[in-house]
Amino acid sequence: MGSSVGWLARRLAAVLQQHLEPAGVRLELWDGASTYAGPRPIGTLVVADLRTLLGILVNPHLQFGECYMHGTLQVRGGLEPVLEAITRLALIPSWRERISSYFATGNSVQRARRNVHHHYDLGNDFYSSWLDERLVYTCAYFERPDMSLEQAQIAKMDLVCRKLGLQEGERVVEAGCGWGSLALFMARQYGVSVRAFNISHEQIAFARRRAKEEGLAGRVTFVEDDYRNIRGAYEAFVSIGMLEHVGAADYPTLGRVIDRSLTPGGRGLLHFIGRNQPLPLNPWIRRRIFPGAYPPTLREVFGRVFEPNALSVLDVENLRLHYAKTLEHWRRRFDRASEDVAHMFDATFVRTWELYLAGSQAAFDTGSMQLFQVLFARGSSNAIPWTRVSG
Amino acid sequence: MGSSVGWLARRLAAVLQQHLEPAGVRLELWDGASTYAGPRPIGTLVVADLRTLLGILVNPHLQFGECYMHGTLQVRGGLEPVLEAITRLALIPSWRERISSYFATGNSVQRARRNVHHHYDLGNDFYSSWLDERLVYTCAYFERPDMSLEQAQIAKMDLVCRKLGLQEGERVVEAGCGWGSLALFMARQYGVSVRAFNISHEQIAFARRRAKEEGLAGRVTFVEDDYRNIRGAYEAFVSIGMLEHVGAADYPTLGRVIDRSLTPGGRGLLHFIGRNQPLPLNPWIRRRIFPGAYPPTLREVFGRVFEPNALSVLDVENLRLHYAKTLEHWRRRFDRASEDVAHMFDATFVRTWELYLAGSQAAFDTGSMQLFQVLFARGSSNAIPWTRVSG
Repeated sequence: MGSSVGWLARRLAAVLQQHLEPAGVRLELWDGASTYAGPRPIGTLVVADLRTLLGILVNPHLQFGECYMHGTLQVRGGLEPVLEAITRLALIPSWRERISSYFATGNSVQRARRNVHHHYDLGNDFYSSWLDERLVYTCAYFERPDMSLEQAQIAKMDLVCRKLGLQEGERVVEAGCGWGSLALFMARQYGVSVRAFNISHEQIAFARRRAKEEGLAGRVTFVEDDYRNIRGAYEAFVSIGMLEHVGAADYPTLGRVIDRSLTPGGRGLLHFIGRNQPLPLNPWIRRRIFPGAYPPTLREVFGRVFEPNALSVLDVENLRLHYAKTLEHWRRRFDRASEDVAHMFDATFVRTWELYLAGSQAAFDTGSMQLFQVLFARGSSNAIPWTRVSG
Repeated sequence: MGSSVGWLARRLAAVLQQHLEPAGVRLELWDGASTYAGPRPIGTLVVADLRTLLGILVNPHLQFGECYMHGTLQVRGGLEPVLEAITRLALIPSWRERISSYFATGNSVQRARRNVHHHYDLGNDFYSSWLDERLVYTCAYFERPDMSLEQAQIAKMDLVCRKLGLQEGERVVEAGCGWGSLALFMARQYGVSVRAFNISHEQIAFARRRAKEEGLAGRVTFVEDDYRNIRGAYEAFVSIGMLEHVGAADYPTLGRVIDRSLTPGGRGLLHFIGRNQPLPLNPWIRRRIFPGAYPPTLREVFGRVFEPNALSVLDVENLRLHYAKTLEHWRRRFDRASEDVAHMFDATFVRTWELYLAGSQAAFDTGSMQLFQVLFARGSSNAIPWTRVSG
């Protein structure tokens, strides 16, 4: 219980409650009072003090996360449904948000390294405690909705390989390879050789160990380097979950890297989190989870990566509901591991990650975020699939 | 045989031959002379006089077609292979072409009517003489490459219906319905009711007769009106081969029409000829075949039709090789019908259409043109397919 509630706090809370009421979200102050007057609420936000209330009013996109993380904002009635309702409220971007998205940022090689280190070097033990056994940290493909997460990650990797039409002996380059699962899968199941790039030191070290253990070190080379330093010619270019970290200002660079890497009959696949309309990433997610990240619209990617290099879009698939389901699995596993995680880090870290995972699920469920897989080839190539593959 | 060949003509011909030689195309003057020095040529352009030679040098994109049409430029060795080789030469657009494409044009309701009349009101007898029995004048889908044109047009219509996930009793609006084949197919095979718009008087009259003959007049309404006048709410919005005629300046209008027509759980599909890079349509095609037409890039469509209305791209498929095959079928049939066509019109008309069809096949074969099918829904709708359909 905090300090007593003054008239100012009550007035401010009433204003905030008015905004939240259409979403069916109840606001409760630190003395238990609420002015909520709607039907049975979806859930309740419990505000611990005046500072929290002010923060959420003035800068909701950042302070909601900050306060939840520090425990001064609590959510009763299920985090994900409440976030979903709030996300729906905010689906119409303000002009300020739209305009700011035009100031596209990029990430220097140095900065990209810091950004990636912030998130992906939290420790392989941490990620092992709640990801699938192969450590695949991107959207899975639930060919059937009742698949296990393990099965759905394999189905995703297989779908990517089939879309790319990989043939034995071909050379593949992977930009942003995580813990190496896809690179090893491609080499093992499709008989290709792979050079896989990543600037996360921990992930690369882990991936190299796996390649050795699985007897694939001869065919899969893990390179601890930036995608901008990719050299050589490849029949396939693949990047799963990296584009979000590139930043729109560096898309022309990525386009040139792809263009100089692909053989005349080469194919490429980009798999990334995107948007229907340009909008900056939530500022709390940018501060606490993914510094430097930006989920683009298809228009932004096509205009800056593909068009300047005469690359031809062959096939696009939007898998956002599959990402919502992937996140549902991750959240269940994270819940089960949360005591261990609290020991590795602390309670603030656990709340931060709970909010990030639940908020992401809400974003994909409500259509605020998309997951695009884009298959492409050189415009001049006729070595393209006659009909497309599906699940 | 034309007049004698002077030194100026020889110099100019030598310049032109230099340009054509990398494509393996031989140039022959009206006295039979040629400076071609490459390997066995793909084919020969035979120029009948100085005026033709000058025209092709000064304004090749327009005059090639004009001269072929008037018979002063002849092609030996197969029209399509020669056009393919020349198209490949021109695949890198000049800056002048790129810049001009930014001056996006639109078409007023009046002008759209004139443009459509120019092409689609050439007479149903004419189109019946070489299209498939259902008169489907858009890219077919050759699920298997050895399908007949008839089968492939049915496969295309069925693919469109499956992508849209049509359910019995749903309401569909079609923008630009040709002779009504898809509208009738949807009503018959999927049990939906259809309002189909078209501004071609001849096509609408024909479609209405078919609806009556097939006993579908109660469920399919053919409306002789512009897409801008679509009113009402529909579970599905479909447009096959109309966007090319809309003009980029009117895409925002089309976007608003779609937005006001779709129910909350509605789906839409646009099927259109497009490009990998913005480029105006060949000026001869614009003058003689499709006035007011413009094949857009995906970026242009997404930025002007979808993004402003928060529509979500679910699925894109590029079927350009299927259009090349469709055109191969059409050309074979047109050849067989060419005597009849010459009687309906004249020899110039036949040459014009031969060039248009062969040039289009070359454009799809070389990757200068694309055929995109784009499936979309409202960004807020979760009534979207879990996995996509394929052939």
